[in-house]
Amino acid sequence: MSIHTIRRDQCHLAWDKSLAPVLHIQSGETITFDCLDASNGQILPTSTSENIQSLVFAQLDQVCGPIYVEGALPGDALQIDVMSLETADWGWTGILPGFGLLADEFPEPNLKIWDLKRAPSGTGEYGYTWFDESKGIKLPLQPFMGEMGVARGVEGQWSTIPPYNTGGNLDTKYLYEGSQLFLPVEVEGALFSIGDGHAAQGDGEICGTAIETPIKVTVKLTVCKDRSHIRTPHFRFHKSSNPAKPMNSEEFYCVTGIDPDLREATRSAARNMIEFLGAEHGLSRVEAYMLCSVVADLKMLEVVDMPNYAIGMMIPRSIFTQ
Amino acid sequence: MSIHTIRRDQCHLAWDKSLAPVLHIQSGETITFDCLDASNGQILPTSTSENIQSLVFAQLDQVCGPIYVEGALPGDALQIDVMSLETADWGWTGILPGFGLLADEFPEPNLKIWDLKRAPSGTGEYGYTWFDESKGIKLPLQPFMGEMGVARGVEGQWSTIPPYNTGGNLDTKYLYEGSQLFLPVEVEGALFSIGDGHAAQGDGEICGTAIETPIKVTVKLTVCKDRSHIRTPHFRFHKSSNPAKPMNSEEFYCVTGIDPDLREATRSAARNMIEFLGAEHGLSRVEAYMLCSVVADLKMLEVVDMPNYAIGMMIPRSIFTQ
Repeated sequence: MSIHTIRRDQCHLAWDKSLAPVLHIQSGETITFDCLDASNGQILPTSTSENIQSLVFAQLDQVCGPIYVEGALPGDALQIDVMSLETADWGWTGILPGFGLLADEFPEPNLKIWDLKRAPSGTGEYGYTWFDESKGIKLPLQPFMGEMGVARGVEGQWSTIPPYNTGGNLDTKYLYEGSQLFLPVEVEGALFSIGDGHAAQGDGEICGTAIETPIKVTVKLTVCKDRSHIRTPHFRFHKSSNPAKPMNSEEFYCVTGIDPDLREATRSAARNMIEFLGAEHGLSRVEAYMLCSVVADLKMLEVVDMPNYAIGMMIPRSIFTQ
Repeated sequence: MSIHTIRRDQCHLAWDKSLAPVLHIQSGETITFDCLDASNGQILPTSTSENIQSLVFAQLDQVCGPIYVEGALPGDALQIDVMSLETADWGWTGILPGFGLLADEFPEPNLKIWDLKRAPSGTGEYGYTWFDESKGIKLPLQPFMGEMGVARGVEGQWSTIPPYNTGGNLDTKYLYEGSQLFLPVEVEGALFSIGDGHAAQGDGEICGTAIETPIKVTVKLTVCKDRSHIRTPHFRFHKSSNPAKPMNSEEFYCVTGIDPDLREATRSAARNMIEFLGAEHGLSRVEAYMLCSVVADLKMLEVVDMPNYAIGMMIPRSIFTQ
């Protein structure tokens, strides 16, 4: 049980280190956030493509917070343990003109409303939704929060649309229940915020939206002192081809690169992984570069949150046998 | 058993539709190729970093072939079933000055020689190699061929270093035993060639080399008539977190985008997947775009074979329940 609860209206629309915290906590405490979907309540289960046309962009991607974590200082990392997620029973996916990987080829607004179903308990699965029941196309749900971030060290108001080295709109599908995210702290107290519930998403989120949905999420926030080698979001997660059989799951560690240029984001992810392998596993830079080449995987976590892309480099924990 | 065998010296160093075939086969026949490693025999188990310094680049990435497949015509696809792969008992990974994702940060040549071990039979695993036994870092092996391609329709000699829409140096780790690759045929007879054995590689192959090794590989080549929607390499593979338990494996279909610009390669992969979902599953373009956004994964298959990148978009077969 969380001892703290944050309401959906305790939210903000820009990363800004001058914002007053909505809550102060001790390191290691848990908080439950009741987050509206990324349309900030503008899309409802009864909405149509016409509501996409009239969306107020300036109201999108609100995040709940910020939370001041006692003891967090620049040079530390904030560890976020994703404890539980509960979606609404509906979600939406939209094509927003001007937004998305193929924006030029899909100029018309469009909206799809999804009916989200829970799986029977004991199956180990969260739930499912029909993409098209007549065609038999059914998707598994694996909820996560598209936005988790801390305040940037630089002055000013920074849009919540792109991700930054301090996190934010990472749109990373692996940040599901049980995953751990590490963010570099740039300001005293970290100033953590969260939002943008997703019921399911592919790597890349190519049309610009996932299955967007209101989510109640519980996270534990812990300060990790002196982690200056964490310069961009890192995360740890377990992947299983069958979530009902966790014995078959495999643990991965992922390091990200965030940049307006895809190749530079990729280079940053590789550089950060090389630094991580040096700091945590004692490898030389040449050793780490070669190891990444033969075993680490590059994934395009999101390629639509302009102007910044998020690329992830993942390494399986199983190669470290000691 | 293959009825055809191709020797390691039956190879060429450029894609060129004017090359004389080394063999004519019927569609559906199998061939075994005895391929040298991608250094074309310049690196040996006794080599050191000094041998990287003196590598003759013009001799690298030879491919065995070409094979003329009767009945293959432009507009068809050539299906390549990867039947079996057998590595040598050694391999190498090199840092080649000027080559690799972080070439500017790693200017010095370097070479690592690997000792490749077979797993006991019955484990379902191919084998393993120690990256560093004293640190307990051990990698699983999953061999595949970095190069599988057909001749380009355009005149001239085209380097085997970059991949093209007709395949070639795809450096795609999922093309292991049991996988199926589909390449667009651009010339009569397809003119298939293969090479660049890899014992293991991460998505991206960031330092520019994988675990390079001589491989004996057997493939079956089949002409699929009239597949004009296959414009770039497509492939199908099974992924299992535990290869010894194939019941837990999951089938994926992957469509690639090949381009000198990373973002355009990504857009091409997405565009090609949307076309595939229309052709094979009857989805409208808008439906397919949204479906990709919520369930398909973008992977960076290779980001080092200049000037062309290979990006893959993958979709799990399990979402199609009919």
